[in-house]
Amino acid sequence: MRMRKRPGAAELLASHPELVVDEPSKWQGRWEERFGNNHPIHIEIGSGKGQFVVGMAKANPDINYIGIDMQLSVLSIALEKALEEELPNLQLLHVNGEELTQYFAENEIDQIYLNFSDPWPKTRHEKRRLTFKTFLATDEEILKSNGEIHFKTDNRGLFEYSLSSFSKYGMILEQVWLDLHASDYEGNIMTEYEQKFSAKGQPIYRVEARFQSENKQI
Amino acid sequence: MRMRKRPGAAELLASHPELVVDEPSKWQGRWEERFGNNHPIHIEIGSGKGQFVVGMAKANPDINYIGIDMQLSVLSIALEKALEEELPNLQLLHVNGEELTQYFAENEIDQIYLNFSDPWPKTRHEKRRLTFKTFLATDEEILKSNGEIHFKTDNRGLFEYSLSSFSKYGMILEQVWLDLHASDYEGNIMTEYEQKFSAKGQPIYRVEARFQSENKQI
Repeated sequence: MRMRKRPGAAELLASHPELVVDEPSKWQGRWEERFGNNHPIHIEIGSGKGQFVVGMAKANPDINYIGIDMQLSVLSIALEKALEEELPNLQLLHVNGEELTQYFAENEIDQIYLNFSDPWPKTRHEKRRLTFKTFLATDEEILKSNGEIHFKTDNRGLFEYSLSSFSKYGMILEQVWLDLHASDYEGNIMTEYEQKFSAKGQPIYRVEARFQSENKQI
Repeated sequence: MRMRKRPGAAELLASHPELVVDEPSKWQGRWEERFGNNHPIHIEIGSGKGQFVVGMAKANPDINYIGIDMQLSVLSIALEKALEEELPNLQLLHVNGEELTQYFAENEIDQIYLNFSDPWPKTRHEKRRLTFKTFLATDEEILKSNGEIHFKTDNRGLFEYSLSSFSKYGMILEQVWLDLHASDYEGNIMTEYEQKFSAKGQPIYRVEARFQSENKQI
């Protein structure tokens, strides 16, 4: 979702290279070094205003998180949240989610989060959906064997499409939630969008989908 | 779902051996002969009062249908519907859905329908759900290569479970509907139960799941 251009966003991001990674391709294959430990690395593709990735990093200090967004304005808001928390296990990337193999080596990532991704509802835009097979191929490449994508959305059409897309790609649907907030799932950290829209009674869909190691093409 | 015992149900079924197959295991591997043609054979496991299977047989004269139910009372209601229509492409079986390999040979069936199956919500009853892996193994055996199960339900827990169970078994989710009646799906034939409960605003879930021929263990 686009927001209005935020004055000073670029400057704010540039002034915090300790959190917003400059020239991230330099760290490809070396993220352990950047974090200073070999904890698992989880990335959120499309981290938006950051409530989810900051909340996850705060709740799970033994996991390293990288929030990725190509929009300056929302990333600058995520940065402000991150600055408040001073979390050593959180980094932000201002890059396009289509080019992840430039920034991460094969098998470098343990888990991927997709939250409320753009639904691109028109059939002719199928290729832009983050659960389209070309994106899954990129995700599979940077993920370790049996790595998982954890995806939630309130968009029925995107969720229907994604379940089938994951399955056709050869992924296993480990668990599915068709009304997350009515379930006994614990530890859900809401995105800004989720907080706003779930209050209207719209069910939140969620799935944990796993790549099968025997399919890994590396 | 159980209904009250219906007086005369057993007698009614016994008096129509042309529709309610007597000693169905005799026809194992010979259903083409029984129908008098080699059209595809679709079965509904748990056909209840018969509105779906009778409606499908009426709408698709070039497909042979077999409705299966172990409850005398509801099967006798299905029989009455079938008698009204006089459909040459419809048969009814009064048998237990657990013993399908006794009545059908390997690769004999083209498609399986499960509609509003008993959800068995308690975890300790998982093995009784018709989408549990042991039932899927039976279904796979009697289905042709790449055969499909078409499943619909209003039960969220059963649908969540079933998507994952199909996927873990190695089946492909060809298409998923999370609100069938709000979708552009055409040709839906409602069951009695579906007609009653969808009117209350409960979404109807549907999936078409395909066995992968390379997994076929025969």
